[in-house]
Amino acid sequence: MSQAVSSPLYAAIDLGSNSFHMLIVRHVEGSIQTMAKIKRKVRLAAGLDENNALSQEAMQRGWDCLSLFAERLQDIPKENIRIVGTATLRTAVNVDVFLRQANQILGHPIETISGEEEAATIYKGVAHTSGGSGRRFVVDIGGASTELIIGEGFEAKALTSLKMGCVTWLEKHFRDRQLSQENFEHAIEDAKKMLTPILQQYRTIGWDICVGASGTVQALQEIMLAQGMDEVITLSKLKRLQNQAMRADHLEELEIEGLTLERALVFPSGLSILIAIFEECQIEAMTLAGGALREGLLYEMIDGLRQDNIRERTIHSIQSRYQIDTVYAAQVSDLASKLFNQCGGVAWIVEPQAEMLLRAAAQLHEIGLAVDYKKGGEHSAYLIQHSELPGFTRAQRYCLGELIRRYRDNITSMPEQYALSGASSKRLLRLLRLAVLLSHRRNSALEPRVKLACSEDTLQLSLNAQWLDANPLTKAELEIEANRQTDMGWPLEVIAQP
Amino acid sequence: MSQAVSSPLYAAIDLGSNSFHMLIVRHVEGSIQTMAKIKRKVRLAAGLDENNALSQEAMQRGWDCLSLFAERLQDIPKENIRIVGTATLRTAVNVDVFLRQANQILGHPIETISGEEEAATIYKGVAHTSGGSGRRFVVDIGGASTELIIGEGFEAKALTSLKMGCVTWLEKHFRDRQLSQENFEHAIEDAKKMLTPILQQYRTIGWDICVGASGTVQALQEIMLAQGMDEVITLSKLKRLQNQAMRADHLEELEIEGLTLERALVFPSGLSILIAIFEECQIEAMTLAGGALREGLLYEMIDGLRQDNIRERTIHSIQSRYQIDTVYAAQVSDLASKLFNQCGGVAWIVEPQAEMLLRAAAQLHEIGLAVDYKKGGEHSAYLIQHSELPGFTRAQRYCLGELIRRYRDNITSMPEQYALSGASSKRLLRLLRLAVLLSHRRNSALEPRVKLACSEDTLQLSLNAQWLDANPLTKAELEIEANRQTDMGWPLEVIAQP
Repeated sequence: MSQAVSSPLYAAIDLGSNSFHMLIVRHVEGSIQTMAKIKRKVRLAAGLDENNALSQEAMQRGWDCLSLFAERLQDIPKENIRIVGTATLRTAVNVDVFLRQANQILGHPIETISGEEEAATIYKGVAHTSGGSGRRFVVDIGGASTELIIGEGFEAKALTSLKMGCVTWLEKHFRDRQLSQENFEHAIEDAKKMLTPILQQYRTIGWDICVGASGTVQALQEIMLAQGMDEVITLSKLKRLQNQAMRADHLEELEIEGLTLERALVFPSGLSILIAIFEECQIEAMTLAGGALREGLLYEMIDGLRQDNIRERTIHSIQSRYQIDTVYAAQVSDLASKLFNQCGGVAWIVEPQAEMLLRAAAQLHEIGLAVDYKKGGEHSAYLIQHSELPGFTRAQRYCLGELIRRYRDNITSMPEQYALSGASSKRLLRLLRLAVLLSHRRNSALEPRVKLACSEDTLQLSLNAQWLDANPLTKAELEIEANRQTDMGWPLEVIAQP
Repeated sequence: MSQAVSSPLYAAIDLGSNSFHMLIVRHVEGSIQTMAKIKRKVRLAAGLDENNALSQEAMQRGWDCLSLFAERLQDIPKENIRIVGTATLRTAVNVDVFLRQANQILGHPIETISGEEEAATIYKGVAHTSGGSGRRFVVDIGGASTELIIGEGFEAKALTSLKMGCVTWLEKHFRDRQLSQENFEHAIEDAKKMLTPILQQYRTIGWDICVGASGTVQALQEIMLAQGMDEVITLSKLKRLQNQAMRADHLEELEIEGLTLERALVFPSGLSILIAIFEECQIEAMTLAGGALREGLLYEMIDGLRQDNIRERTIHSIQSRYQIDTVYAAQVSDLASKLFNQCGGVAWIVEPQAEMLLRAAAQLHEIGLAVDYKKGGEHSAYLIQHSELPGFTRAQRYCLGELIRRYRDNITSMPEQYALSGASSKRLLRLLRLAVLLSHRRNSALEPRVKLACSEDTLQLSLNAQWLDANPLTKAELEIEANRQTDMGWPLEVIAQP
């Protein structure tokens, strides 16, 4: 019980064209736990002159940053460290000067990886942290390069790195710092030209879903959430943001709700590139990836994390983290699925993700008991909504939390969320509550045989009358539950069958 | 990783004179996790007639409740169940009639325990869930009996059960349901008479701290918190509540902020008994125990939970629950203690509990990383403040959470709390932050040698200049921290010594 526990640290460092990042993690119970993040905006790419030589000042900014990182690296086993340089280091003609001193400072070699390697590593980072099935199109807009990848599962099918990024596009198309229609048009057109050579191949391979990584996409997501939009990035939203940006004349005056100062400078250029990609690739919707380059580096180092079903891995990791009774969790989940199918499955709740969310909610609803029994549902919701859940989108994570918050005791309406329609989320909640209630004896052999029938929002739950009489606690709780659901305007009738 | 985990359940049922309670728990990682609580207000004691015979109606209320409990008991291993009856069952002349049917319903024998056994079990429940050293005086006011115990560690030194309780005193002294001065005086005087025989013995044994268990004390604590008072129960607060109660003429009109309907009926009678105990035993201050009879029953059943230092057990259990790096936690804790002592220890922070709180905060500050790195301190505070922490009082738990919330990043002032003075909590926070910062490399061999000197609220931290130059990240972070503390009006100077 009081035995000392310490697990080794891992570090991934990415010397990007805009910022240098260090990510330090531990590997705990099948998941990666972040222990420290250090970031410095070195703006290396801005130090390239017309001959692609890095200025002395830019190199010095880089070295200063690396000596901070070096202090932390001393404590980490050599084999648990990876340090990579990307586009600017690929391009700089005097990179050797930079690397010689940098390697000395770090006491660890920097790998300058090719664009294709970068794309492959980004894809690994995305594949390990994003759920969903089918073919994925991944877009990562960096400071001096943009990676475009198509893949399925853990396998990349097309890898491209283009020499355009939010820093280089800023210097090329917004050098006068004017947020004019003209500058935006040039930036977008130029980005489209860069895309031309790969369009045919990418369209032929095709994809089912589109995922964006990197700071540009993250900044967009933060803006959309701050402005009350849902999390899905669409072309019309990007255009709206372009119009918002053009209301300012100068970059220095740019003010968009939800945009941080730190991202403001490279926001218009990144936005232009993204608009070009949306238009040329005819992307309908993009969501934010859970990880990219640094995560890819870590997943390459840490064994045992590869599992084809990211969501399963996430659920098991969380169950283990909060010491859930997994036998019981599986019981509730199976019963919930059974009730879902008795109601007609997707005929009753149309979203294809509904059953997956129901099962996940059933498997995770008790995690809050690790905190306290009182308000257990509240605690479960807090933990779910504040944890990284690789494989689930932000909207799904929020929806799961809201379902779980209400798994027992009084019912309140589901709040607005974007993972499911309001009607569907209500139906899912009703099924979850019934599954929890009917399995409260925590033993599938003691579960009653039930038949759930639905007609729109009216539910009828049939059980054997003798069984009900022999199990007065379940009977009393079902009566209370029928009243609670019915009082919410969700009719539920419990029928005792002879 | 995906291996099935299910741990056996335990049940403790207490057939009290006012309510029947069932508590179902699991034993996980050295701590008890509540899985279900079921309670019915059976008011058995109210069913006793003048000849101490239980009425048929009261028995029926009891049996109805037991058949609900019985359903859950079927799933729990026989050896993990304990069911006890207390004062009313000890008193009822026709108890055999009740027990025969009750045992049949439960399929498990009910033990009617003696007053002394009840007191001993209550003491075990308190000893396992309350911290603090020295001799403890425990008061538990039930429906028909009041237990008074003196003990030290896990050993009880005096056990008494008196035949007075909040239900019997209600029927005896507030039968007319008038909240008059006269009724209160009679109730208090009568309670004092009950205490007379044991006063001499208890005063001779003596005690250092006083702890209250049971619904009456819990209701008092809820009222005090709702009314913005601190958690410590004193005679003057009890008198204030008596005056608030007497503002209503009838019990039915009783309205006190924070008093629930459920407790209202037996509140004046319970209050009278407690006032009598405070006055006769000259109690200065009482805090609420973390557990009592049901917890005592559980701790008797579950092996391996006995540890002399309850706080240590709690800290280890939480560290293990949230997979804390315990080696690092110990490093921070030791460094924090060292800084505390360099500043003069209790000469600088006067509260005797201060170092214990500082060490606990250092040992637990990273638990929130199990949720997410971002806002890790917030998550740690949430988990601490919402968890049961046997051995820590509510005020200490709150204070710990507020310290931990601020362990890194920006500083904000400590909010009002009752575990420490405002000045002391600020000093503790400063030490915690320095200990975390100075150990950020997570390896005690790489910790700098420091000397912390204080003069009132001015701190001077001296480190070797060469070491600082060789460790630029620590140096940069110490500069930021010095600015942050100084900006708060807490001067901190970092001195580089040759």
